[in-house]
Amino acid sequence: MKIARFVPLAEPASPARFGVLEEGLLRELSGGLFDPPAFTGRRFGLADVRLLAPVMPRHIIGIGKNFTAPGEPKPPEPDMPILFFKPLGTVIGPGDPIMLPNGANRVKFESEVAVVIGRTARRIRPEDADGVIFGCTVANDVSALDLFHPEGHWTIGKACDTFCPLGPVIDTAFDWRSARIRASVNGVPKQDGAMADIIMPIDRLIACISGFMTLMPGDVILTGTPAGADWVGAGDVVTCAVDGLGELTNPVAAPA
Amino acid sequence: MKIARFVPLAEPASPARFGVLEEGLLRELSGGLFDPPAFTGRRFGLADVRLLAPVMPRHIIGIGKNFTAPGEPKPPEPDMPILFFKPLGTVIGPGDPIMLPNGANRVKFESEVAVVIGRTARRIRPEDADGVIFGCTVANDVSALDLFHPEGHWTIGKACDTFCPLGPVIDTAFDWRSARIRASVNGVPKQDGAMADIIMPIDRLIACISGFMTLMPGDVILTGTPAGADWVGAGDVVTCAVDGLGELTNPVAAPA
Repeated sequence: MKIARFVPLAEPASPARFGVLEEGLLRELSGGLFDPPAFTGRRFGLADVRLLAPVMPRHIIGIGKNFTAPGEPKPPEPDMPILFFKPLGTVIGPGDPIMLPNGANRVKFESEVAVVIGRTARRIRPEDADGVIFGCTVANDVSALDLFHPEGHWTIGKACDTFCPLGPVIDTAFDWRSARIRASVNGVPKQDGAMADIIMPIDRLIACISGFMTLMPGDVILTGTPAGADWVGAGDVVTCAVDGLGELTNPVAAPA
Repeated sequence: MKIARFVPLAEPASPARFGVLEEGLLRELSGGLFDPPAFTGRRFGLADVRLLAPVMPRHIIGIGKNFTAPGEPKPPEPDMPILFFKPLGTVIGPGDPIMLPNGANRVKFESEVAVVIGRTARRIRPEDADGVIFGCTVANDVSALDLFHPEGHWTIGKACDTFCPLGPVIDTAFDWRSARIRASVNGVPKQDGAMADIIMPIDRLIACISGFMTLMPGDVILTGTPAGADWVGAGDVVTCAVDGLGELTNPVAAPA
């Protein structure tokens, strides 16, 4: 099931709602993301809606340095991943502009598989991790490297408003194990990586994170980006994509 | 106005509610923390309620290395503070146990002034920062140094469940500029620091943070701890206190 969050273009002031994407149409749902699906009977064409980020996360948990370049030997899995949080004001949807922060000149995109947690999860074993995943979507984990702290803290550089495009849909049946992750800037291919190059796989990430903090429905894990993440500047258009999950395109805008 | 969040002991299954502390009694409020105060007419003695963390934060933003030891020369204010987020599962109230994580042997308490943001705040000037503060409370920014990443990321060591006791009240009239911050473990004094020893003061912190992320009501900033933060282990009882704001006492428990 592929679930989108949207507002009909003809009703721009109406509340956001969820819908299931089937044969190019969105079948409107009456409830929330984690409710049992109940259809209202209304259907919308994709051209007739504005897609939003498909989840309003509770937390956004990012993972750093989690892929090797293709052909590079894989290092041993670390005792702990590099982990950071992105605040909720980072979340934007498909088509929304990534706003460059004042004074940041070294801004990168990173195309990633984002996992949406669907259940309360504490001390989950890797073999049980699939059971706590609600679904997957595409994320662009934008970073301003100028704003990384010299002592190693990435927090501010990851936390700027608009720095977490998500979408276009959450796929509840997506097999993350075979994901192929791509990105392009202004149509020029930049990333084309396979989940085979991940260092700490998603099931082990969920085991690790749920070992120190209780995961809850709506928590989102950005699972790391393959080789090829690159700089962007004002006027660029970035497309992050995961084969089978969809494409997430956002323009980059100068500081407001 | 000192505001607490509580559940009456005689109605343990009833919802949490807010109350204003006046002459040792809690005057129950009918609305939420940021609503104009409206009293229900019920009053509760402090002995007849269980106090909870006085705010369920939207974000918890922590600041590192932000105090000098008394008498130590103050370094120049840095271009950016060390900043980290603590997830919502870290929040506990007065008296709740701090649960040590499995495998963490180097756990510290840190007594701090916590600022609760009351308004949407973007690019706030230091001279306007007091206008976006709803009030202040006491925080214990617990850290497991074993879980700091060797490349400098503190995230996991700051993020363990129960690692952010808050309370007992939010004081909307507290003058953070003259705060005196104390802590004791098992009754033995450990911290006694003055806000005069802060490196980046609270108004400048709010200016800095609101420069890259939009602050919203319910965001909480832990503003840094004075000298004297120390190790704790299972069985210890930690009291963090800020003169005029109150005392926040929590036992430390072995891993569950």
